[in-house]
Amino acid sequence: MTLHEEGAQKIAWARQNMPLLAGLRVTFERELPLAGRTVAMGLHVESKTAVLAELLVAGGASLTMTGSPGTTDDAVAEALRQDLGIRVLGQRSDSYADQLEHVKESLATKPDLIVDNGADLIAAVIESGQGGVFAATEETMSGALRLRGELSGRVPFPVIVVNDSPLKLIVENEKGIGPAVLDGFNRATNTIVAGRTFALFGYGTVGRSMARTLRADNATVLLVETDPIRALEAALDGMLVMPIEQALPLADVVITLTGRPGIVRAEHFGLLRDGVMLANVGHFSTEIDVDALRSAATSETVLAPHVVQYDLPTGKSVRLLARGEMLNLAAATGHAIEVMDVGFALQGHSVHALATRLGDFIAGDQLVPHSIDLTIATDILKTMPAARWAE
Amino acid sequence: MTLHEEGAQKIAWARQNMPLLAGLRVTFERELPLAGRTVAMGLHVESKTAVLAELLVAGGASLTMTGSPGTTDDAVAEALRQDLGIRVLGQRSDSYADQLEHVKESLATKPDLIVDNGADLIAAVIESGQGGVFAATEETMSGALRLRGELSGRVPFPVIVVNDSPLKLIVENEKGIGPAVLDGFNRATNTIVAGRTFALFGYGTVGRSMARTLRADNATVLLVETDPIRALEAALDGMLVMPIEQALPLADVVITLTGRPGIVRAEHFGLLRDGVMLANVGHFSTEIDVDALRSAATSETVLAPHVVQYDLPTGKSVRLLARGEMLNLAAATGHAIEVMDVGFALQGHSVHALATRLGDFIAGDQLVPHSIDLTIATDILKTMPAARWAE
Amino acid sequence: MTLHEEGAQKIAWARQNMPLLAGLRVTFERELPLAGRTVAMGLHVESKTAVLAELLVAGGASLTMTGSPGTTDDAVAEALRQDLGIRVLGQRSDSYADQLEHVKESLATKPDLIVDNGADLIAAVIESGQGGVFAATEETMSGALRLRGELSGRVPFPVIVVNDSPLKLIVENEKGIGPAVLDGFNRATNTIVAGRTFALFGYGTVGRSMARTLRADNATVLLVETDPIRALEAALDGMLVMPIEQALPLADVVITLTGRPGIVRAEHFGLLRDGVMLANVGHFSTEIDVDALRSAATSETVLAPHVVQYDLPTGKSVRLLARGEMLNLAAATGHAIEVMDVGFALQGHSVHALATRLGDFIAGDQLVPHSIDLTIATDILKTMPAARWAE
Amino acid sequence: MTLHEEGAQKIAWARQNMPLLAGLRVTFERELPLAGRTVAMGLHVESKTAVLAELLVAGGASLTMTGSPGTTDDAVAEALRQDLGIRVLGQRSDSYADQLEHVKESLATKPDLIVDNGADLIAAVIESGQGGVFAATEETMSGALRLRGELSGRVPFPVIVVNDSPLKLIVENEKGIGPAVLDGFNRATNTIVAGRTFALFGYGTVGRSMARTLRADNATVLLVETDPIRALEAALDGMLVMPIEQALPLADVVITLTGRPGIVRAEHFGLLRDGVMLANVGHFSTEIDVDALRSAATSETVLAPHVVQYDLPTGKSVRLLARGEMLNLAAATGHAIEVMDVGFALQGHSVHALATRLGDFIAGDQLVPHSIDLTIATDILKTMPAARWAE
Repeated sequence: MTLHEEGAQKIAWARQNMPLLAGLRVTFERELPLAGRTVAMGLHVESKTAVLAELLVAGGASLTMTGSPGTTDDAVAEALRQDLGIRVLGQRSDSYADQLEHVKESLATKPDLIVDNGADLIAAVIESGQGGVFAATEETMSGALRLRGELSGRVPFPVIVVNDSPLKLIVENEKGIGPAVLDGFNRATNTIVAGRTFALFGYGTVGRSMARTLRADNATVLLVETDPIRALEAALDGMLVMPIEQALPLADVVITLTGRPGIVRAEHFGLLRDGVMLANVGHFSTEIDVDALRSAATSETVLAPHVVQYDLPTGKSVRLLARGEMLNLAAATGHAIEVMDVGFALQGHSVHALATRLGDFIAGDQLVPHSIDLTIATDILKTMPAARWAE
Repeated sequence: MTLHEEGAQKIAWARQNMPLLAGLRVTFERELPLAGRTVAMGLHVESKTAVLAELLVAGGASLTMTGSPGTTDDAVAEALRQDLGIRVLGQRSDSYADQLEHVKESLATKPDLIVDNGADLIAAVIESGQGGVFAATEETMSGALRLRGELSGRVPFPVIVVNDSPLKLIVENEKGIGPAVLDGFNRATNTIVAGRTFALFGYGTVGRSMARTLRADNATVLLVETDPIRALEAALDGMLVMPIEQALPLADVVITLTGRPGIVRAEHFGLLRDGVMLANVGHFSTEIDVDALRSAATSETVLAPHVVQYDLPTGKSVRLLARGEMLNLAAATGHAIEVMDVGFALQGHSVHALATRLGDFIAGDQLVPHSIDLTIATDILKTMPAARWAE
Repeated sequence: MTLHEEGAQKIAWARQNMPLLAGLRVTFERELPLAGRTVAMGLHVESKTAVLAELLVAGGASLTMTGSPGTTDDAVAEALRQDLGIRVLGQRSDSYADQLEHVKESLATKPDLIVDNGADLIAAVIESGQGGVFAATEETMSGALRLRGELSGRVPFPVIVVNDSPLKLIVENEKGIGPAVLDGFNRATNTIVAGRTFALFGYGTVGRSMARTLRADNATVLLVETDPIRALEAALDGMLVMPIEQALPLADVVITLTGRPGIVRAEHFGLLRDGVMLANVGHFSTEIDVDALRSAATSETVLAPHVVQYDLPTGKSVRLLARGEMLNLAAATGHAIEVMDVGFALQGHSVHALATRLGDFIAGDQLVPHSIDLTIATDILKTMPAARWAE
Repeated sequence: MTLHEEGAQKIAWARQNMPLLAGLRVTFERELPLAGRTVAMGLHVESKTAVLAELLVAGGASLTMTGSPGTTDDAVAEALRQDLGIRVLGQRSDSYADQLEHVKESLATKPDLIVDNGADLIAAVIESGQGGVFAATEETMSGALRLRGELSGRVPFPVIVVNDSPLKLIVENEKGIGPAVLDGFNRATNTIVAGRTFALFGYGTVGRSMARTLRADNATVLLVETDPIRALEAALDGMLVMPIEQALPLADVVITLTGRPGIVRAEHFGLLRDGVMLANVGHFSTEIDVDALRSAATSETVLAPHVVQYDLPTGKSVRLLARGEMLNLAAATGHAIEVMDVGFALQGHSVHALATRLGDFIAGDQLVPHSIDLTIATDILKTMPAARWAE
């Protein structure tokens, strides 16, 4: 199979399982809301984002995509170039220096609409003083934090932050993440879950999803959480809430899901069981202090493609999964396709609203209009099983 | 056993299972924050509220309790009168006219602090123009609605609404209600749950708790919910989301949990299966239109203490549980004792705060201070299992 | 309400929820398989057995029922006497001496068919040398053990042991017992399950059902089991398998379900937490050594109708539920009605087979013919939800 | 990485997660029970069986392994050859004709002990009349069926059938298979499970494990099962039991787990939803009639590496996963490593018993001695979490 064929197959499979984007595409093809528009997209280049890219092109956009180092799927990129003529900048082996070049190239296309990830393109536009952008969307929590932090008050056009939608919260965080991480754990280790002890850090929506998934699959879950109300919820969900010093010596597997750096640190290594597995799900690969682990280790051995063993001076060894990066993305293929269909339907509807009724929005970051959440939820329900039972 | 002995035993059993109130009592006995205070309490008179009453008296209060028709536990009332000298107004057989008299009697004690239920005492104070009240607490959602509705802007003293505490939401709504209603269902019917089909109306916190409890016990749950985002969450939790017309003909048991009147109405009776059971968990006994059911029925038969059968002209019959009143309260003993310990610890801490640092509060309804939620959650965690595993 | 009315209502409610017996009744009324037969029944006299009694009478039997001390429901007995003319011997307040008299009276009716419980009537017939019995059924495990022990080789007529049916095993043990015991726990204590630690003894079918029910309701389950294969199954089901010495100091509630005496003994009392609850589900009230507990205690206090506190010389106290008798029966109303419908349908079909084709059976104890299990399972499935989804 | 390095890494990772085999190895190295023995093994050549092979060699055996076409992991084979000098016959691309040659080569080594799969080597020995074999073990159900069928009474040496061990039943079937198949489904499709409708065929131990796993992950499970007792158990587990004609039009995914051929046949294709996925878990790839599907299809398209779409003349299309072969093996890596550790510890202990106390066994097929099941279960429990809580 050629690279192009492989990419086309991946995109086709994603497309077939994204009914919300398929529905939107009918609208985009009929209305051409992006006719004459130049769009710059900063999302990771892989099969699901490719279907969103197809939607924008179907709506009339001239599209440039800028991927990220290490995550660009070169086959998908090739198929998008050949089949749709999309300008896809970058490849998997890129360095961060390469990416900065790609961002510049992207801005050189004079985009008037940005679909951003981590606010990288928006920040570049603001820094450069380049005009012409009438609106943007932002996919992530980290982008939202930048918009409310360093970029606060400086963005002269509306930015819809998809991440904060209640719909996305339920579908991605509450329901999507647990099974996706379990998938990553299975692929990385092929080891058993039932009967094992997992120590989880954090009981926000992500930690809750993970903990409930593991417990439903017959694991014992120890839960470390500093917020007492969340900790109490965990206890009433059947988790064993403990301080970190008590949890670590009991755990077969340790997973961080807090969104904050420095959760498992050098001072904790001595508490870990021999052979323990360490994994991270939070956005930043700094929840487990991997640098400290490397420094402390007397030797480092690759046990499996996603497992590295560090031998500690104490004679114990620990096994780090996926280098401490997000386990669901690094060892598997991220969220289920249908979960991303929801997130990207929020993108598609938001882009449509910005392109067709810009006057409804204010400058700066803002929520997805609630009517869009309701529309999408209603559309999904039509595809859910129960509806067919009445046929 | 005498009525007094029965009441004393009930209170003692509740007291032994309320560690939060026991902890607060040490503080109240030492500090006497209510010394010289006259308190009027409007909560239902039963064993768990009796332990809260004990707390207030231990804190120095002169206390008058006004119960509600149909819910006053006469044994508990008798024990409170004899053992603590509390003035308890009313008995189970009271009419609503009787209760109005009791409210008047209660105000005649010139209370300076009110612990209210449904805002009945607060409303009476406002209507009467009587002064002297420096603060109040309100237990319920319906009281909160009155404070924000008809009483809005008219209450010159602070009212802490316990109902809206995030802690109460998690403990009572998310985790407490499902098992409590199941208890009521078991006592009322002694029939099986596993393998049966339940149609539930509403997927707010209460409906979600009920649905998850039933599914965990191997029932099939059909879910009727008009909000599409909640409906989607239900679907992703494994519930079969359906419109009412599709759900009713499939259900063995129908339960309303919406908080709104008129959910199951005369026009739906024809859709119900022969022998179906109907129950309600929402605060109002009007979610199922019981009057319409009585009107439509050709005969009415008591099948069991909490089950009445209505024969319909169609030849089918339906079985109404607990007259359409809250099944957990009417057929069982409400929430687990520890669940009420949380709710009443919120009351106790709120009363303490109002009595000792009134200047921190504004006139009108407001949330429980978040520090109280955190304090109580921390206290509960100390009593939870995991803590002892480190002993 | 009169005693008769109360009994009639209870029986009617049970009858309405026993579709299998209702179906069998049509056959019995048409065929009259017991016409001219004198039947002696030894099952507990309560509402569900009453429906089985009605079936036998509908089939033509002249019936005498002998209840057991402490379990006879006098209201049900009265209704059976008045409405069906059944001779019901005994009342709740009977002593064991009274019961021996009743067994004699029952044999004096010259029964030719016995429906037995614990093999009491069969043993009496064998001991007395009385002839005329052509067949019997036996409901319980303990009766089965007597038939295979002291009575082995001595019973000249067929005895079908209902207890050993695979259908009963699944419906009563695997699925029925957990929810029924939880019902008993709720009624006895009104305390919370979620977040609490239960130590269970035994992972046979009964222990497994209980453990899974508690875990599904968000408890932590510690499991003590001497058979390593069962213990491993428990571990893979998410239970924490431990030796007794490790489990007792961690448990909020201790439940025995082994079927063997002397599980929690005097030597263990010192390991229990202060305030722990002790309960038993096994057939014998000797799994917890209650006599030893009474001997050890410095005082004994009734905390609630089904809770007695024993203060130990160590300064700790323990709370015994339902005097160590089967919690589901003593504190609630036993299995769900539909569960007993299955057990009694096995009885009804077995009686029918014995009465109409005696030649198919051999002398002594034997299994329910497998065709009966299949027939009943098929009948139940017709009443299950899914069938109606096709309507 | 070279082929040898890849294989060595895979074996090392498996070895590190097989504590039971590690424990046995100490015994084998000390006692050398297979010193001077020539062993022929017929298991699939992959990383987990490699660890069993290492055990036999550590015990003194001269070992020849014969893999199967399509399942041999060439990297693992290479590592076994280079690192242990094991004679590994065959490679992934072999035909069945090649394999017959390999079986002959294996017999030519004059084995005196056989570790068989599907009774292929045993049958070849019997057919050839070759002597010298003193004992054998058999891994699979299909081998057991041959031993009890065509080979019945013809095998002059003991054969221990590992498949029938109660321990293996619980660990592999009841607990192992569900998560393993889910892993295969995730890898093959990356589509969502929660909220979806799965139609499962068969509620034996394998079907039950699969159904419970899917339901715990919030799917709706329709269950088709011809045995009414199993069907009833499924219903009481919360599955919707239905006839095939009712289930197929409702299902998003159809999975066969019956162990019998011809479950989903040409006559059913018209009932399937457009876009439905079809998968098999049963040992034979004939549960779904793939040949009939190919014949009926107007076109065939590869959608993803493990997904082929067949367009039917009705205008609908179906998506066959993993060509109808066992989804957990074909699309993922089979059971979790620890699950296979149990199955291979049964092998190792059985081999040890046959080699050291042959007199305890009779000719022909027989169960694993129960003492071995108990020993292994006890060993596993020592590695389970709870034991460490007492440290």
